[in-house]
Amino acid sequence: MQGTMLYGPRDIRFEDRPEPTITKPTDAILRLSATCVCGSDLWPYRGIAEMKQPTPMGHEYCGIVEEVGKEVRNIKPGQFVVGSFATSDNTCLICKDGYQSSCLQREFMSAAQAPLLRVPLADGTLVATRDLPPKELIASLLATSDVLGTGWFAADAANVRPGRTAVVVGDGAVGLLAVLSAKQMGAERIIAMSRHGPRQKLAREFGATDIVTERGEEGIARIKDLTKGMGADSALECVGTQESMMQAIRSTRPGGFVSYVGVPHGVELHGEQLFYAEVHLHGGPAPVRRYLPELIGLVLNEKSNPGRVFDLMLPLNQVADGYRAMDERRAIKTLLRP
Amino acid sequence: MQGTMLYGPRDIRFEDRPEPTITKPTDAILRLSATCVCGSDLWPYRGIAEMKQPTPMGHEYCGIVEEVGKEVRNIKPGQFVVGSFATSDNTCLICKDGYQSSCLQREFMSAAQAPLLRVPLADGTLVATRDLPPKELIASLLATSDVLGTGWFAADAANVRPGRTAVVVGDGAVGLLAVLSAKQMGAERIIAMSRHGPRQKLAREFGATDIVTERGEEGIARIKDLTKGMGADSALECVGTQESMMQAIRSTRPGGFVSYVGVPHGVELHGEQLFYAEVHLHGGPAPVRRYLPELIGLVLNEKSNPGRVFDLMLPLNQVADGYRAMDERRAIKTLLRP
Repeated sequence: MQGTMLYGPRDIRFEDRPEPTITKPTDAILRLSATCVCGSDLWPYRGIAEMKQPTPMGHEYCGIVEEVGKEVRNIKPGQFVVGSFATSDNTCLICKDGYQSSCLQREFMSAAQAPLLRVPLADGTLVATRDLPPKELIASLLATSDVLGTGWFAADAANVRPGRTAVVVGDGAVGLLAVLSAKQMGAERIIAMSRHGPRQKLAREFGATDIVTERGEEGIARIKDLTKGMGADSALECVGTQESMMQAIRSTRPGGFVSYVGVPHGVELHGEQLFYAEVHLHGGPAPVRRYLPELIGLVLNEKSNPGRVFDLMLPLNQVADGYRAMDERRAIKTLLRP
Repeated sequence: MQGTMLYGPRDIRFEDRPEPTITKPTDAILRLSATCVCGSDLWPYRGIAEMKQPTPMGHEYCGIVEEVGKEVRNIKPGQFVVGSFATSDNTCLICKDGYQSSCLQREFMSAAQAPLLRVPLADGTLVATRDLPPKELIASLLATSDVLGTGWFAADAANVRPGRTAVVVGDGAVGLLAVLSAKQMGAERIIAMSRHGPRQKLAREFGATDIVTERGEEGIARIKDLTKGMGADSALECVGTQESMMQAIRSTRPGGFVSYVGVPHGVELHGEQLFYAEVHLHGGPAPVRRYLPELIGLVLNEKSNPGRVFDLMLPLNQVADGYRAMDERRAIKTLLRP
């Protein structure tokens, strides 16, 4: 088969790769229905995150089970499944508490930008649908695998509640789906920080009530204006830079909640500043597995359309174009069809 | 009257000061029953926290109301009251949410190491007892003003729950009362990190089930040993240094809760490290006012004896000795009798 490799900054190659096989008895092999490019793939693509060797790319996936290892009990060949970007046994105490993305046996997925994928800990990582889903829902189901699950965690970790105000920092696919998640959790006012017309439009469709284009001090002043001078109840940081993190923390009222779901790059939090901000801070790799059953249900019942973030659909062999379009911000998110 | 001034590192003077008077109609003047030296007073005393001019010291207090301003409605002369180190109107939305220490009208108290004290926003800051309390409870009532309230916030912000495991980093008075608070909130296992015999003993009396004397990597390894390899559910950081903050974060399992209640000095949190730790982080100046009614009730009903942290009692005019004893770690905490 052919799969996606990153050789260095902006050097994506779709090339011959060995077909994955069952290597542990808890593995499954999937034939993917769809995969995609993640905002986090752009860190190594841009040379910002260090990469020591050519790396198989991709960690968002859904598809049909081809084969399972002999210790796999619940997942069966022929089923349609979605999995998280982090594998989990779903039985350890960390998993039982809902933090499957920090499972004691966690591995981060890779090599999903390919037609076939090996998924470790299949029983604990994958969620199967009862029936094969209709084709038109594949994009939204794919979104639950990471980008929606991550936006949902952003809203959950920031304690979004009915009647409250949430600020979303970042208008990438995760930020947009954080808006959708905040809306579905009942936030009354959702302030999206965005400077980009088409993304503002999608944010409004997903439920944003206000758009703030200013950043830094001016952005904070605008949020304060919109929240009786206090700051928001919740801020959802969906970028991962020092600027976005401080924007989120400083936009939140004392006692409020700040979540952060993008891998931070170069972020340093000053203890005393954090102390006097008196916010709650929570984030990390989103425990998507916790939310998958609920999120898949919302998509299958057509109560959620997260697949709308995919504004570029390409055959898998054009994966390099998919990266380029996202890097140049011509596309919000690229879906790839194997 | 005479009051306590800090002129520079280790230069405490008890000297003539003007008697406080009502300056705003929401003020009250108290005649203090007791006051004390706070661990946070040691930062400027040691020259670590910057101080631009001679500063009146002290922010923990309880006593009898002498006089109130004409807009004070609920607090009356003759009442015994306890107040927080942070003033609050107790009516703004931040206060209503329980964050009185970040009230929009907050002032940090000072000048409490004196016989008489002006308290701004008396109605929102002070809590009166129904009757004058017996003398033997004064030390414990004084403790609710800051050191117990802060330990209690540490336990609350770290989500201490029945049946769970809590690590307390720091064996100062706040750390010891964080142990007591965790016990009263039902923690099953309370691990106190302490190297100091008399403090270990008091920690055990307050409810610590385990003492860890190791620090850094070894300390973390010991906590993991005690928690099935996972880390604690909660860690209560009661020091304010980089070392103690990282000790707390790294001792906590993913999905667990870390609180920090001492003003951080020189603390920088690395974003990526925090991200993969996947803990909840919450702290700041303790909203003591939120807890005062409950904590005063526990003391009056003799269900809590936080005054035991005062292991040195001095007349107020020996305040300089009280600082010295704490600085040299000969005393856990010094109570001062005006």
